[in-house]
Amino acid sequence: MTVLALPDRIDIREVGMRDGLQLEEPVPLADKLRMLEAIVATGVRRVEVTSFVSPRAVPALADADEVAKHLDQWPDVAFSALVANTRGAVRAIDAGIADLEYVVSAADSHSRANAGRDTAAASAAIGEIVDLAHDAGGSVEVIVATAWDCPFDGPTPPERTLDVVRAAFGHGADRLCLGDTIGTVTPRRAVELIEAVRAAAPGVEVGAHFHDTRGTGQANALAVLLAGVRQLDASVGGLGGCPFAPGASGNIATEELVYWSEDAGIESGVDLAAVVAAARVTERAVGHDLPSSLFRAGGRSVPLGPYRG
Amino acid sequence: MTVLALPDRIDIREVGMRDGLQLEEPVPLADKLRMLEAIVATGVRRVEVTSFVSPRAVPALADADEVAKHLDQWPDVAFSALVANTRGAVRAIDAGIADLEYVVSAADSHSRANAGRDTAAASAAIGEIVDLAHDAGGSVEVIVATAWDCPFDGPTPPERTLDVVRAAFGHGADRLCLGDTIGTVTPRRAVELIEAVRAAAPGVEVGAHFHDTRGTGQANALAVLLAGVRQLDASVGGLGGCPFAPGASGNIATEELVYWSEDAGIESGVDLAAVVAAARVTERAVGHDLPSSLFRAGGRSVPLGPYRG
Repeated sequence: MTVLALPDRIDIREVGMRDGLQLEEPVPLADKLRMLEAIVATGVRRVEVTSFVSPRAVPALADADEVAKHLDQWPDVAFSALVANTRGAVRAIDAGIADLEYVVSAADSHSRANAGRDTAAASAAIGEIVDLAHDAGGSVEVIVATAWDCPFDGPTPPERTLDVVRAAFGHGADRLCLGDTIGTVTPRRAVELIEAVRAAAPGVEVGAHFHDTRGTGQANALAVLLAGVRQLDASVGGLGGCPFAPGASGNIATEELVYWSEDAGIESGVDLAAVVAAARVTERAVGHDLPSSLFRAGGRSVPLGPYRG
Repeated sequence: MTVLALPDRIDIREVGMRDGLQLEEPVPLADKLRMLEAIVATGVRRVEVTSFVSPRAVPALADADEVAKHLDQWPDVAFSALVANTRGAVRAIDAGIADLEYVVSAADSHSRANAGRDTAAASAAIGEIVDLAHDAGGSVEVIVATAWDCPFDGPTPPERTLDVVRAAFGHGADRLCLGDTIGTVTPRRAVELIEAVRAAAPGVEVGAHFHDTRGTGQANALAVLLAGVRQLDASVGGLGGCPFAPGASGNIATEELVYWSEDAGIESGVDLAAVVAAARVTERAVGHDLPSSLFRAGGRSVPLGPYRG
């Protein structure tokens, strides 16, 4: 294998509990915990389990405190929570989750719409959140939302993303993640920004968060793995599509990522059959079909209709 | 750009008229021609327009002779037809299509199920079909079906695929294409076989035909472009899913391939907006939703719901 210099292992973070569920109708806590149990059984080592944001804005995750109470039973899994401001960070830490993802939108319009302040103001809060988390023995990953494109402002100038990266780096964030918030990025653009970020923040772990909204999610994942990324977000069943856009895909599907990366000899510690089982539990929890193609098609052996070319 | 050494241009063959339609309910000729007109308007230079196979096995393409009569109006497009045996080749040439795709299944069980003879017998016919096509001023591409996996026999031993490749090469076929018939292949396996084939048939153009059945189709396309492939099959709207498996994806979607390859600076001569328009015509022709995610989601600018991470 000369042309595909892929890593030996990748670090998958399961985000179905947060990004996957956040736009769904609220799922009862018991069903949510069944879903989480199935996710943990896949062997995944990192789970973004909820977010501490306004329950009015995201009613589906209004039970964050309740969810947090159930995590001690899985001491081998690193659970984290997404926060959008200092208040959320305090809530998360009080609830017992000190490993935080703090979102900063690189595009001002998106930042204002989602966090009520522009990118510079959101960036300025990184230090305070890092201090809170570190004091609690935790860590902070800065997720740069709209890292490539904004639904309001169009393509995000790379310098805007790099400004957030430098702020994160300067304020002592532990990790970085670039978010393809609206699922528009493509392999070459993905890699170009990853390379620029790695140059701007040498030595900092940079992950990637893709949505499969336009069918390029797994190709983007492949591309950034070739560019040295080792941490990828994915959601069971590809959950995360907007319920108001039927058929729209959500995050890249964990089972599709595991399927092809396993074939490439990449170890993730995640068991494919267990992810498919977790997708089944998730499908029941949310009460509708999931976007993942692999989940629908199954494994390698499928019955054959008339001639397929 | 160091890690993604992508080509400047790719050669897309639109296969929606053949692989896309073959498992559909028969589409009336007038609708089919409207679909073809929209496909030609995308700028694509190669169109696999039908197949000359048993109308009992593939009723959707029983009008192959009729379709062939309408192609002269587009002299700049290279139309080709798929055949499964010498009789089909004769029919295609009589109908005025001398550029042929001849399918040989690398797996015996699939070959018997679809062509009524084993791989060796199907391979032995290559020479006769090449002679027929060349005598008519045409060309033959050998498509190796089940190049990676067979629904009956499981993984295809690479030597079986290479045997077909050597037979094609030895009998003077003009081009080769590897078919991921059941949509199971993944990037590394895709590239490994492509590299072995290029070694076995030096100088012969090798294309790839992927189905997006398990969400890895565009990742496979990216991988083989990195491995030197320049010819990819794709179908408008991702048409080609089995109608008996709702939601199953068909061929890789032309618009998704154009979307990301255009972003990567790869020229295909195919216009993205025109492919989306053709997908709309195709959706009306077949009377159901198409699998393509990009077709559903649209271009870069989408309205935003609550926070997306």
